[in-house]
Amino acid sequence: MNYCTECGSRVELRIPDGDGLPRHVCTACGKVHYVNPLVVVGCVPEHGEEVLLCKRAIEPRYGYWTIPAGFMEIGETIAQGAARETLEEALARVEIHDLFAVVDVVHARQVHLMFRATLRDGDFGAGEESLEVKLFRPEEIPWDDIAFLSVRFALEKFLEDRAAGVRRLHTTVIDRNRSA
Amino acid sequence: MNYCTECGSRVELRIPDGDGLPRHVCTACGKVHYVNPLVVVGCVPEHGEEVLLCKRAIEPRYGYWTIPAGFMEIGETIAQGAARETLEEALARVEIHDLFAVVDVVHARQVHLMFRATLRDGDFGAGEESLEVKLFRPEEIPWDDIAFLSVRFALEKFLEDRAAGVRRLHTTVIDRNRSA
Repeated sequence: MNYCTECGSRVELRIPDGDGLPRHVCTACGKVHYVNPLVVVGCVPEHGEEVLLCKRAIEPRYGYWTIPAGFMEIGETIAQGAARETLEEALARVEIHDLFAVVDVVHARQVHLMFRATLRDGDFGAGEESLEVKLFRPEEIPWDDIAFLSVRFALEKFLEDRAAGVRRLHTTVIDRNRSA
Repeated sequence: MNYCTECGSRVELRIPDGDGLPRHVCTACGKVHYVNPLVVVGCVPEHGEEVLLCKRAIEPRYGYWTIPAGFMEIGETIAQGAARETLEEALARVEIHDLFAVVDVVHARQVHLMFRATLRDGDFGAGEESLEVKLFRPEEIPWDDIAFLSVRFALEKFLEDRAAGVRRLHTTVIDRNRSA
């Protein structure tokens, strides 16, 4: 960040009075510009025994498989965001059920919130950000080609819970800066 | 937002190609400036039968009571954020347990994530953002002077679960723009 969003003057990195962290502060109007983690919302869309995955048509992780997920927008709830992302990426309408995975992705400055979901009908297809969208039986899931650790975590916990007949909340922390 | 953070030129509000929502786009360098909901992290700190509340020394809701909570920062987990806010606002060290309340506060563009917690010792006091910090038995909680609906929700669910001897995840949506 170089310039103030309000007055267009240069910003400098310093710790504001009463704060504990360096922030971008405007040298002219004094506005403090905060940067905070973003919320990623997604779901595991179930259709009978199968789950719906998307092959990414965008970076990062072009060509790898993911569940439908993306950045939460202003004006929507986390559940609405998960349903919107599924419609955009997989052209599928889903019923969103319970929140079952909460993942801190510290190095990416994100919190991932994943829901259990079911397809409302059998319709789906590749949205603009997907190369291909496909239903997978559990034994067909391409574990070696999953895009993100948070998606792997969500899929594993989803399948474990389903096999056990339970619905739990699972949380974990992923921090690439702190692991090998 | 008036100016681009990268080059300092004027921004305009328009829908970028391939996007579905209006964004602030730089008229010179083309950078798209996204605005997304923020994460608020907090906890209900328990000490025996009592819970620790803070009387706010800042707006909004100056003088009203809240649980320790605030904006999640870059580089921390949601649990670390909840513990940090408790140290800052209530000068109390807590052990963070399970995430038990997830609240969409749509009109405020926030997602609130609240944890059950216990005080590590009996020490606490008023941080810079608090007028007073105090332990309350359930029947003493000043329900008419609670700062936010999300805090009321969290306190109610915390006490209900404790009375029932269960630990559940509770979710709700608060949208002041859509209710009376």
